[in-house]
Amino acid sequence: MKNLGVNLLSIMLVLMLVFSCKEQVSDTSVEVATTEAESGHPSLVLTKKGVRDIRANLGNIPIFDKSLAETKAEVDAEIEVGILVPVPKDFSGGYTHQRHKQNFYMMQKAGVLYQILDDEKYATYVKDMLMAYAKLYPTLPVHPQTRSYARGKLFWQCLNDANWLVYSAQAYDCVYDWLSPEDRDVLENNLFIPFAKFISEGNPQFFNRVHNHSTWGNVAVGMIALVMDNDALLEDALNGLKTDNLKVGMKDNDGGFIKVEGQKLGFYGNLDEPFSPDGYYTEGPYYQRYAMYPFLIFAEALQNVKPELNIFEYKNGVLIKAVDALINLSDADGDFFPLNDGQKGMSYYTSAVVTAVDIAYHFGGKNPELLSIAEKQDRVVLDDTGLSIALGIKEGLGKSFDKKSIELSDGQNGDEGAVGILRSEDLELVFKYAAQGLSHGHYDKLSYSLYEDGDEVLQDYGLARYVNIEQKGGGNYLKENKTWAKQSIAHNTLVQNETSHFMGKYEIGSIHHSNKYVFDVSNKNLQVASAKESNAYPGTEMQRTVVFINDESYAKPYLLDFMKVVSNTSNKYDFPFYYLGQLMQTNFEYNKLNTPTVFGKDNGYQHLYKEAEGVSFGDNAKLTWLSNGKFYSITSATAKGDKMILAKIGANDPDYNLRNEPAFILRKTNTKNTVFASVVESHGTYTARSEFAENAYSHVKHVEVVHDVAEYTAVKVETDNNKTKLFVISNLDNKAGSDHKVTIEGEVVSWTGAFTLKELK
Amino acid sequence: MKNLGVNLLSIMLVLMLVFSCKEQVSDTSVEVATTEAESGHPSLVLTKKGVRDIRANLGNIPIFDKSLAETKAEVDAEIEVGILVPVPKDFSGGYTHQRHKQNFYMMQKAGVLYQILDDEKYATYVKDMLMAYAKLYPTLPVHPQTRSYARGKLFWQCLNDANWLVYSAQAYDCVYDWLSPEDRDVLENNLFIPFAKFISEGNPQFFNRVHNHSTWGNVAVGMIALVMDNDALLEDALNGLKTDNLKVGMKDNDGGFIKVEGQKLGFYGNLDEPFSPDGYYTEGPYYQRYAMYPFLIFAEALQNVKPELNIFEYKNGVLIKAVDALINLSDADGDFFPLNDGQKGMSYYTSAVVTAVDIAYHFGGKNPELLSIAEKQDRVVLDDTGLSIALGIKEGLGKSFDKKSIELSDGQNGDEGAVGILRSEDLELVFKYAAQGLSHGHYDKLSYSLYEDGDEVLQDYGLARYVNIEQKGGGNYLKENKTWAKQSIAHNTLVQNETSHFMGKYEIGSIHHSNKYVFDVSNKNLQVASAKESNAYPGTEMQRTVVFINDESYAKPYLLDFMKVVSNTSNKYDFPFYYLGQLMQTNFEYNKLNTPTVFGKDNGYQHLYKEAEGVSFGDNAKLTWLSNGKFYSITSATAKGDKMILAKIGANDPDYNLRNEPAFILRKTNTKNTVFASVVESHGTYTARSEFAENAYSHVKHVEVVHDVAEYTAVKVETDNNKTKLFVISNLDNKAGSDHKVTIEGEVVSWTGAFTLKELK
Repeated sequence: MKNLGVNLLSIMLVLMLVFSCKEQVSDTSVEVATTEAESGHPSLVLTKKGVRDIRANLGNIPIFDKSLAETKAEVDAEIEVGILVPVPKDFSGGYTHQRHKQNFYMMQKAGVLYQILDDEKYATYVKDMLMAYAKLYPTLPVHPQTRSYARGKLFWQCLNDANWLVYSAQAYDCVYDWLSPEDRDVLENNLFIPFAKFISEGNPQFFNRVHNHSTWGNVAVGMIALVMDNDALLEDALNGLKTDNLKVGMKDNDGGFIKVEGQKLGFYGNLDEPFSPDGYYTEGPYYQRYAMYPFLIFAEALQNVKPELNIFEYKNGVLIKAVDALINLSDADGDFFPLNDGQKGMSYYTSAVVTAVDIAYHFGGKNPELLSIAEKQDRVVLDDTGLSIALGIKEGLGKSFDKKSIELSDGQNGDEGAVGILRSEDLELVFKYAAQGLSHGHYDKLSYSLYEDGDEVLQDYGLARYVNIEQKGGGNYLKENKTWAKQSIAHNTLVQNETSHFMGKYEIGSIHHSNKYVFDVSNKNLQVASAKESNAYPGTEMQRTVVFINDESYAKPYLLDFMKVVSNTSNKYDFPFYYLGQLMQTNFEYNKLNTPTVFGKDNGYQHLYKEAEGVSFGDNAKLTWLSNGKFYSITSATAKGDKMILAKIGANDPDYNLRNEPAFILRKTNTKNTVFASVVESHGTYTARSEFAENAYSHVKHVEVVHDVAEYTAVKVETDNNKTKLFVISNLDNKAGSDHKVTIEGEVVSWTGAFTLKELK
Repeated sequence: MKNLGVNLLSIMLVLMLVFSCKEQVSDTSVEVATTEAESGHPSLVLTKKGVRDIRANLGNIPIFDKSLAETKAEVDAEIEVGILVPVPKDFSGGYTHQRHKQNFYMMQKAGVLYQILDDEKYATYVKDMLMAYAKLYPTLPVHPQTRSYARGKLFWQCLNDANWLVYSAQAYDCVYDWLSPEDRDVLENNLFIPFAKFISEGNPQFFNRVHNHSTWGNVAVGMIALVMDNDALLEDALNGLKTDNLKVGMKDNDGGFIKVEGQKLGFYGNLDEPFSPDGYYTEGPYYQRYAMYPFLIFAEALQNVKPELNIFEYKNGVLIKAVDALINLSDADGDFFPLNDGQKGMSYYTSAVVTAVDIAYHFGGKNPELLSIAEKQDRVVLDDTGLSIALGIKEGLGKSFDKKSIELSDGQNGDEGAVGILRSEDLELVFKYAAQGLSHGHYDKLSYSLYEDGDEVLQDYGLARYVNIEQKGGGNYLKENKTWAKQSIAHNTLVQNETSHFMGKYEIGSIHHSNKYVFDVSNKNLQVASAKESNAYPGTEMQRTVVFINDESYAKPYLLDFMKVVSNTSNKYDFPFYYLGQLMQTNFEYNKLNTPTVFGKDNGYQHLYKEAEGVSFGDNAKLTWLSNGKFYSITSATAKGDKMILAKIGANDPDYNLRNEPAFILRKTNTKNTVFASVVESHGTYTARSEFAENAYSHVKHVEVVHDVAEYTAVKVETDNNKTKLFVISNLDNKAGSDHKVTIEGEVVSWTGAFTLKELK
């Protein structure tokens, strides 16, 4: 890496020298450039005008210059390696998969370098590579790996073939004018058109669908259509195939629906349905990040080639809103919250989001907050949008991106629940009361995860997969994703009778969603979110309310969390908290088993070990743990006979696919109606360097549900500063203007609005 | 914290203003200052001349100014809190403990501030605090907590009382001249003299001993003796009590010996015996860090008050060497290797090492490498030594501290084994073939731990304790420290017949040590350390050799590790690797148990769960794991019938005191002589942001012991670049000049020196 650094520096210096000379010449050409679209190529992502502007500024736009130098170093190294186009064989993670993946990235970059640096060696590289593919492709059967519902030819699934085409189309656009018409004929007839037909007409179950896979498929076909000026393919890309012979109710190998009656398809369909008006993508941020690249790169291409479509205005500018939503769906380190199937560690530093930020800035009104994200990303896309960013940064226009508490509605019309994010000091709570999230959804209604300063405090497990690590099931979804990660018990939410929400059935889950009830962050010292779920367990109504309460006595707010459960049957309820860290102390006795037992038979329970159990005498149960140098406590109201279970993930895991992390589970048996009420605190710190423990003990003396009827629920929290606070919520009327009056413990409490917090002494 | 930042800034600005004026005046006084010791106070750590020099430079020495501003902010906040001197009651972690600890730190700092800022409010604070102690102390019985072998009065153990006196003596020195003679009489007669007598004559089992506790005791008495100019106390401090009535063979509550026949005692004794000539402190770096403060602060005081003792020349300058050794005993992040009882996370950023670095720089020839450590520490001690550092940094004299491969001998004369550290690229291997390490030693002869870029790859568990976290056994050593952390099976070394080295008995372990055999790092591409152990298991000889081999085909060196075992009985051998991270794959079949079983009955085995077991067919056993975005593999030669066991720490741990981390254990049964030969590699990377897995597979195709007789052992390593390397070591003759010739697999191999590495094809 040290050597690379030196090389980069040399390259940058050379570039700066070269372009500091060119600059003076090309200044004029910038001025005479028209703002109208010009004919000829490149036209999709890079434009002719963009290339001129970039050349004029090179050497004088640090973040762009650096990105260019890095790209040049990378492509130069690959050119040394030569053209390698192996016969496809492997799953993701394997050699042929990685090679073909590397190839399309490199072609796209080489195309850009040819345009910007005007060096034919890059055009030659693209041509040689594409010609090799034009020779190979017609000989290929479908990929030998059979796992996918839509097998590709270069890759085991059409999805990756579509990735290939999205990037290769850009490369082709960059060298189009440089190639001879004969070469173009060969490429289009032997490679691009059959390729586009194969992933569209040849795989309607992949192409004609609302799903992130299909978005890639639509965009792949759309991009190559724009380069080739092929209206028929463009129409398929935008609106889907007219006929597909697919049966309604078909499912893919993840269990997701393929065909839904009356669904709008193609790029427009995929823009309409999965995005809420707030820009939340129903599969969750991990897939939103993945989908943003094709959505935005194609939108950019459409804007450049077909500006009359006004794609960035579509659905009230949802594409630009989506970028803002995506950034808000990341923690303090920029890591995306792993809602639904999400691999931890994916962050806004990934290249797809670099593109998204650059495009959103350039086409979305030059929001200065995006410049600060681009500065953190420390690289830009080598096109017109990256140039805009680089100039904005250079001119010092950036403003810090202020992530606030925010509710992002789910559903095409924004009426299928939401994800609510409460932020207070360094704490972030991600509360999920959304729709199913298509085939990547988890059965975790009303679950939440809690973060502090970018570290997980109460975790969402995420997916059970090691993406692109071949040793782990070819890098694909592991069976534990279904048997563990998607199940309700794997989440911080209520589980009834050891079954998952909607019986863990996608057919049921996908027709329901939770409902927003309250999201009020107008007072930063009292932020409240509340939501309801009526369908997860028929006959059982759940309402969860989470409240960040700031008490000036304490350095940080604490979280009041209560789940009201009303059922028409007696049930067993489990209520887990997936804390991360080392258990310090509990205030209850527990019996640690000599060896763990498997916690249950099915629905995820078979993956939990029970390590210890305590029985409540009806007091509060408190558990304190240490994680990342911070002390945390959960204090929960319990009823006599409730069980406190200490568990660990990892049973029935023959291949060590799961992470062995702990859980604290509250269990109530033979219960109809109840309230699970807890306070979660970040109350202290430990520094190994000084060996000082500060505020190692919880500040919460007592938590109690003091009132619970259909109309109102009230929870009292007593803290060690001799304060007692009473939080009351109206369960049936959430209107801001409604007046309420209720007698609690002999005192009349009255207020206006859905909730109130009273200081009792 | 934001507010504090602003306050610090304001304070610094004010200080800079104040002292930029004073500077001009005091420049003259610096010039006329003599270099001779002046009479009067302060004289120990701060000196009169030092104070003048500091005042003259203030506002113009950034790191010092910043440290001063931080200290002022901290002490000012404490002055607001007021004088709190509670009746002692709690263990470490509890209120009275923390309060008295905070008091002595604050007094020392207030004394310094009085001298530097010439503001009497600080002197008043010190006086009020000391007077409160002078009132309380005579009323105190021994501390009510009974756990210690030497109970203090302010704290549960004399050790902490000694800490108090070391700091309070400095505070007293700073205000000595400002106090009235009457006040000094009160303080000396009611507090300091009885205090010093209590921790010396009153507790000879604490004071008259070679141990880090005693060092603190000696220094505490010595420091107050220097302030009071009390020769009798100084003599006790330097050379120990003349009579103590202790019995030879007495032990403390950690099981350490108290009295050893003919031992030199006092400060000199504690300097002589635990420090090797290389500056390695036999208890290990965690305690060395703790002991360095009293050693160096007293050395500084002696140098200032009794320069004729030439304390920094003592034992060939061992005190300065010790600072260098200590820094070398840290990983890339500055965290100390947790050899013996060591809490992870303790690092050279801790205040004791700030002091050590400053003193070593000032009195040890101004080694410019220490300036770079001080820059990282980002603070200095507020005395003459901190001023030297600050001036050195300001003048840009710093040089990077280059941590090299190094062997640090153990034992008073350097002949009791050693700790060998091999460093290559980002890898660091810490190989322990030292003496027992007094009462803090672990039974882990020939064990090693492996680090990459500051992260643990193969861990040393460290201690079983949460220092100062009251919830965990009062913050003291947990019973699992003895039952788990000290036991041999808790370490990466050989265990015979499920017993620990020396039967886990301190009496036996402390009379033995391992022996160095080879330490050759002259070729950075072939670094070799080898050591022998003959006493851990009587009748069994162990020799372990570790080799970093750089193969230009690979980005990083790999580690060849082989342990030759020769016994006169048939034994069961267990050979664990405590890898950290997620298991990716093994090349052997294993049977994962439905629920774990407890691995054994005693000697640490009772704390391990056996999770899975495989049986060797005589091939290599390979295990690949992922940790911190890197892929690692162990490839081990096994014999048919050997067991490969996957285990986890955490059985019989009723209070969740242990960390549940994994182990890979090779087991051979009914074996007399054998060689455990493995290659450990860091071969690849995984980046969650890009989801690229590079080099996820081990490069090692085969590891085999091809020759093993009394005289020679040879191991062959075949890698996937079609290279085969043969490493041969002479087991009986380690002389550099000896010629060797041996026939291995039909080929004659000849070389000069203890070992050779041949390329076979």
